[in-house]
Amino acid sequence: MRPIAWRDGALELLDQTRLPAEEAWLRCTEVEQVADAIRRLAVRGAPSIGVAAAYGLAIGMGAGAGGAAPAAPAERFEAVSDLLAATRPTAVNLRWALERGRAVFASSAPEDAGPALLELAHSVAREQEAADRAMGEHGVELFGRGERVLTHCNTGALATSGSGSAGGVIGAAWGAGGVSEVWVDETRPLMQGARLTAWELGRLGVPYRLVTDGSVGTLMSRGLVDRVVVGADRIAANGDVANKIGTYTVAVVAHHHGVPFHVAAPLSTIDPATLTGAHIPIEERDPGEVTSIGGAAVAPAGASAANWAFDVTPAALVASIVTEAGILRPPYEEAIASVLER
Amino acid sequence: MRPIAWRDGALELLDQTRLPAEEAWLRCTEVEQVADAIRRLAVRGAPSIGVAAAYGLAIGMGAGAGGAAPAAPAERFEAVSDLLAATRPTAVNLRWALERGRAVFASSAPEDAGPALLELAHSVAREQEAADRAMGEHGVELFGRGERVLTHCNTGALATSGSGSAGGVIGAAWGAGGVSEVWVDETRPLMQGARLTAWELGRLGVPYRLVTDGSVGTLMSRGLVDRVVVGADRIAANGDVANKIGTYTVAVVAHHHGVPFHVAAPLSTIDPATLTGAHIPIEERDPGEVTSIGGAAVAPAGASAANWAFDVTPAALVASIVTEAGILRPPYEEAIASVLER
Repeated sequence: MRPIAWRDGALELLDQTRLPAEEAWLRCTEVEQVADAIRRLAVRGAPSIGVAAAYGLAIGMGAGAGGAAPAAPAERFEAVSDLLAATRPTAVNLRWALERGRAVFASSAPEDAGPALLELAHSVAREQEAADRAMGEHGVELFGRGERVLTHCNTGALATSGSGSAGGVIGAAWGAGGVSEVWVDETRPLMQGARLTAWELGRLGVPYRLVTDGSVGTLMSRGLVDRVVVGADRIAANGDVANKIGTYTVAVVAHHHGVPFHVAAPLSTIDPATLTGAHIPIEERDPGEVTSIGGAAVAPAGASAANWAFDVTPAALVASIVTEAGILRPPYEEAIASVLER
Repeated sequence: MRPIAWRDGALELLDQTRLPAEEAWLRCTEVEQVADAIRRLAVRGAPSIGVAAAYGLAIGMGAGAGGAAPAAPAERFEAVSDLLAATRPTAVNLRWALERGRAVFASSAPEDAGPALLELAHSVAREQEAADRAMGEHGVELFGRGERVLTHCNTGALATSGSGSAGGVIGAAWGAGGVSEVWVDETRPLMQGARLTAWELGRLGVPYRLVTDGSVGTLMSRGLVDRVVVGADRIAANGDVANKIGTYTVAVVAHHHGVPFHVAAPLSTIDPATLTGAHIPIEERDPGEVTSIGGAAVAPAGASAANWAFDVTPAALVASIVTEAGILRPPYEEAIASVLER
C-alpha cells in the first residue's frame, strides 16, 4: 500500500480524511492542491508530508501534466516554497524537504528546475522507503517474544509513504515474533488510531485492539502493555519529541509503570536547529475538531475548546529513538549530534 | 435543574443520552423502564443511579400511577431488587439504595411497601441534595484564589440529582472566587464531559474549555492546571477510587506534575465491604461505544476494541476525598472507618 504515487504526470494521494469508509484518491496537478491536501490532512504523518511537499515543489515549478517552466523561476520558487511551508508548522520534514528542493533549484538551470525537482521528489520517496525498512530492521532488536505493544496516532505506510516509522517497527517485530498484539489508542480528536492504524493493521493481519486514549492508565495498571512505540513530528537536538497530542500523556503513564517508551522516526524528523522541545512550534487547530466528530456536534452549541495538535515528550521519558541509522540512546545530545555528523 | 423528579405518580428522568442536543424526559411507571434507563445511561452518575433505583423499587412494589400492591410481595421485592441490581455493577450507590429499600420493606406491612418505598426514595433524593450542598461547602476550603481546575466525566446535577459531587464542589468554589476556569475532559467514549459537563457549566455561567482526554499531559506541562477534582463510582475501604475510564490516567499525570488530585463523593459511594480497588467489579461495555460515535463508525468494520467503563485510582494518588461529613485525608483506612462509624 503506497498512499503517495506519481502517476501520469500528477501526484496522487490516498485521501486519509475519508478512510476507513472509502479509499478515494486525489489527483494533484497544481501546487495549490498539494498545499490544500497537506493543510486539511488528506496527506499527513511527518514523513509523508515531506514526500508530498517535495512533489508539490516540482509541480509548482512546472513538472507534471500540463505544466510549463515558469517565466520568473526564482520568484516562482519562493512563492511555491512559501505556500507549502505555511501549511503546517510542527512537522520538520516539510521544511527539510523544501530545503533540499532549494539546493536542487540553486544548482540546476532555471528552465530545468521542474524535472530536477521531480527527480528529487522521487529520491525523497525512495529514501523514505529505505529508511522505513532500516528502522524496521533496527527496531525489532528492542523486542522480546510475543510482546503487547501500545501505539498512538498513525505511523504506518500512510504516515511515511514507505512501510512506516513506529508502525513499520511494530510490523517488522510482529513478523519476527516479537509482538503478539497491538493496543491502538484511538487518538482524538481526528481518530488517526481508530481510522488509520486499525485499518492498516487489519490489512496486514496484525492482531490489535482499539482503546480510548484515556484507557492507557488502566491498560498499564493491569499489566497489559510491555512496550510503547510512537512516531514523531519533530525531534529537537536534545531528544525532546513533538508528536500527536496525547503522546506525552502516554509517556508519563508508561514512565509511572516502568513500561519502556520508544520513538521511531527517520533522521529527517530530527531538527538540530531546534535546541529543545520548548522551541518547537505547536500547531493549534480549529476547536471544531474537538466539539464535533464527523460533522456531528458532541458538545453544546458555542462550547469553548482548546485544540493543540501536538505535545512534547521530554527526552528523559524516551528509552530510545529508532532511526534508519540505528537506535539512539541517552544522552541524546551526543547521540543525535554524532548520527547527524556521519 | 433537577434531572430526576417524581411527577403525577411517575418517575421522570431527563434523558442524558440525548443531551445536549435536546432536553427530552422519560416517564417511568414500570420498574422495567427504570432498569432500562439505568442500563442504557439515560440516567447515570453513581448518586443519580442510587436515587433512580430507590424510585424504581417503589414503582416495582406498586407505588405510582396505575400501580397496585403485588399479590406476593416478598417474591416481587426480590425480583424487582434483582432486576435493578443487575443493571450496572460498579456504582455502589445502586446496591446501597437497594439495601436501604430492603430494610424499609422488612419493617413495613407488605401491603404498604409501595408507599413506604416511595417515601424512602423521596428521602434518598433529599439526602443527596443535602449531601451535595455539604460537599460544596467543605470542598471550597481546598481552593486558593482563581484556580484553574480540571475535571473528568460528569459530576454535576445530572450525576447526583442535587448540585453535584465534584461538579458541586467546583461550582461552589467558582461562586466563592476559588476557581477562574474549568478544563473539561471530553471523556470518551460516551463524551459525558463534552455533552453533559459543558452543558451544565454553560448553564451555570462557569467559564470552561473542553479538551480531548489526551490533552491532560500538555495542559499540566504548560502549567495550566492548579487542581483536579473528580467524582467516584465506588470508593474502597482503603481509599482506592473507581471512577470513569480515564480518571486514573489523569491521576498519574497530575502526580507526575505535583498537581493535587481530589475526589468528591457522598458517603453512599464508599463501600466498606470492598477492601481495595482490586475488589471493585469493573463494568465492560459494548465495544461499539468505542468503534462508533453517535451511530457513525470511526473505525474499520469489524475492528476489535476494549471498553472498560471504569478504572481504579489507588489511594496513594488521592490528595483528599470530599464528603458531606468533611474532607477525608490519608491514611484513608482510618479516615473512612472513622467517618462511617459516626
